[in-house]
Amino acid sequence: QINGQRLWQSLMELARVGATEQGGNCRLALTALDGQGRDLVVGWMKDAGLSISVDQVGNIFGRRAGRNPALAPVMTGSHIDTQPTGGKFDGCYGVMAGLEIMRTLQDTGLQTEAPLELAIWTNEEGSRFVPVMMGSGVFAGKFPLATALDATDMSGKRVRDELQAIGYAGMLPVGGRPVGAYYEAHIEQGPILEAQDKVIGVVTGSLGLRWYDVNVTGMEMHAGPTPMSVRQDALFAATHLMQEVIHIARDHQPHGRGTVGVVQVHPGSRNVIPGQVQFTADLRHEDAATLALMDQRWRQACAEAGERFGVKVELIDVQHFPPTPFATPLVQHIREQAQRAGYSHMDIVTGAGHDAVYIADVAPTAMIFVPCKDGISHNEIEDAQPEHLEAGANVLLNAMLQTAGV
Amino acid sequence: QINGQRLWQSLMELARVGATEQGGNCRLALTALDGQGRDLVVGWMKDAGLSISVDQVGNIFGRRAGRNPALAPVMTGSHIDTQPTGGKFDGCYGVMAGLEIMRTLQDTGLQTEAPLELAIWTNEEGSRFVPVMMGSGVFAGKFPLATALDATDMSGKRVRDELQAIGYAGMLPVGGRPVGAYYEAHIEQGPILEAQDKVIGVVTGSLGLRWYDVNVTGMEMHAGPTPMSVRQDALFAATHLMQEVIHIARDHQPHGRGTVGVVQVHPGSRNVIPGQVQFTADLRHEDAATLALMDQRWRQACAEAGERFGVKVELIDVQHFPPTPFATPLVQHIREQAQRAGYSHMDIVTGAGHDAVYIADVAPTAMIFVPCKDGISHNEIEDAQPEHLEAGANVLLNAMLQTAGV
Ligand SMILES: NC(=O)NCCC(=O)O
Ligand SMILES: NC(=O)NCCC(=O)O
Repeated sequence: QINGQRLWQSLMELARVGATEQGGNCRLALTALDGQGRDLVVGWMKDAGLSISVDQVGNIFGRRAGRNPALAPVMTGSHIDTQPTGGKFDGCYGVMAGLEIMRTLQDTGLQTEAPLELAIWTNEEGSRFVPVMMGSGVFAGKFPLATALDATDMSGKRVRDELQAIGYAGMLPVGGRPVGAYYEAHIEQGPILEAQDKVIGVVTGSLGLRWYDVNVTGMEMHAGPTPMSVRQDALFAATHLMQEVIHIARDHQPHGRGTVGVVQVHPGSRNVIPGQVQFTADLRHEDAATLALMDQRWRQACAEAGERFGVKVELIDVQHFPPTPFATPLVQHIREQAQRAGYSHMDIVTGAGHDAVYIADVAPTAMIFVPCKDGISHNEIEDAQPEHLEAGANVLLNAMLQTAGV
Repeated sequence: QINGQRLWQSLMELARVGATEQGGNCRLALTALDGQGRDLVVGWMKDAGLSISVDQVGNIFGRRAGRNPALAPVMTGSHIDTQPTGGKFDGCYGVMAGLEIMRTLQDTGLQTEAPLELAIWTNEEGSRFVPVMMGSGVFAGKFPLATALDATDMSGKRVRDELQAIGYAGMLPVGGRPVGAYYEAHIEQGPILEAQDKVIGVVTGSLGLRWYDVNVTGMEMHAGPTPMSVRQDALFAATHLMQEVIHIARDHQPHGRGTVGVVQVHPGSRNVIPGQVQFTADLRHEDAATLALMDQRWRQACAEAGERFGVKVELIDVQHFPPTPFATPLVQHIREQAQRAGYSHMDIVTGAGHDAVYIADVAPTAMIFVPCKDGISHNEIEDAQPEHLEAGANVLLNAMLQTAGV
């Protein structure tokens, strides 16, 4: 049994770093605030007796030795970077739950057969830098280290330099070593557990995701004298494509998702017809074939929009991962431990990408969800109940012990 | 007859201040570059023998005495601030044409009965500060001086302080003095003269304009786990309203105009459903009753969108002016002078607001248009032919002499 109060306190203390006025968090990946958050948590990890290492993409590992050093570690973890208007729990809960487990084992002096590791992955959110789930992606060999290190934010700053600046450009090669199992605890970030009144979500796998950038080029002209008939309005064209993202998702319910999150309109003057619009698109589905259909319809919509609206449309693939099923034996461990502890539970699929989705490629992987208030995440008002967070951490502890052997 | 080559050279020299890489101009109102542009032109005005005064909103006047100092001046002018991605001719042509007339009169020693004045109006473009047509608006009593001085740009800088910073916070009270007549020469900023192969547009009046800001508030949520059915997507709602602006204009052809120029999406992260979208809307028509109908339909669309999309929609009136007919005798002078000089001409209505539209409220007013290449304006590639600019300035000269008396 973990200490729920200590878990809550650490979560609240971490949330003070980059706290926003609306009660949320803004601790964007590899900013000075991310550095402060890392320093705080690394201190706690050391106090919990973990030996720390940092790899070349800034992933942090805290290791607790097992009786059998030859065994691959049983790992848990998540991320502590946040959205620009993020909450206190997304990612941080998984890291603090892992820390709480290490603290509990330190308190009880219990040693596992296999070593245990707590991981903090770099730039999971993907709001400052793409690829999203960057640290776990390089760890799992999904893209090269150089792709990550050369990624730039909107202002042109590179991951490589920002890692240096906060002191987390580590020496350890990224990945390429065996992981016995990977568990990740996380808030659901959706409304299902709450609606079904369940405490534990047994996550069986993840939606597949496709991310795109779209550039629409028309012609800047004066809003007054230019007759409607001769306009090449990049924004008017773009609004139709933005709506198509939503329609594609709506036509593939209940598991289709479609979102436009970023829009930039150039030159951005009240009395100028926009000459250029850039926006992002995010499509998801749990079924690979359906996601492929959605992707196809989207490509076609972009291809046709040019002629239809007299503009140029450029579609860029930014990132994608397929629907990912988790490891059946680990999923079963989670289900059993929830059952044994008497927590209400249900199987669920994650709509959010998580570091677990990439790690699933190189290690048996599963996830534990707990409810969040009104299903709201990626919002400063994101909230969760201490009892639920405690329950999730208990299931995590026991599933890890079951896998690592006591 | 004015000197077309000198006119062209001065236009090109002014265009060097704030020149952009694409061959356009970025000399936003009351920036340091606007200050440099003003200094350059004021120097030329002094060389042309004009006595300079600056009023409290930064409008600059250069006066050439008449034989009868009791007569109200015959004024011409325009603006030298530009759009963020503006061209070399919008506004600057009117000021340089006025300057060329003063130079021509200086060369010939001709004195008019009424005094002549050349005005440079502050912040005509309205891209950095609203109200648009700010200097002429205060001069004509359309809004109080304080409204103008307290206006702020996106970064919170005030007109009052920016005027001080560039040294154009003058002492002269704004307006409140008689103007005998006001003529303004301008590029058409639309495709009609070129399509009809005419050199001179005899501007009979202006479209009415309504400007709005719209704030749409939904709920920030995670793009992955949030089912489509529970979303309050501020952007999805906003795209429908943006399209409605265009549809309203299209349904009132040929004189309806509708434009969305500025869009801001918050928080602007790829995997966050937008919780807030702010955008501008611009509706125009030459008929007051039709513009009222368009305004009514737009208000209704905004009122209905809230319930339809599960979001909050706030509509803010930013500025408006009614369709403005110009003074028939002055319009007739322009038509006559074009005729007399053998320039092809046609009557035309301006779709752009101009300082003339506000001055028309306090003085008999008319405008002279010349064609611009492909009808393109508010674009760095804005272009015009030297012969057309020369023709417009000749018509301006002779119309002014006709009004002022020689
Ligand atoms: N958990 C989470 O917010 N991940 C970010 C990646 C995604 O957009 O799904
Ligand atoms: N001429 C001009 O560009 N005026 C700006 C005001 C408007 O949008 O019509």
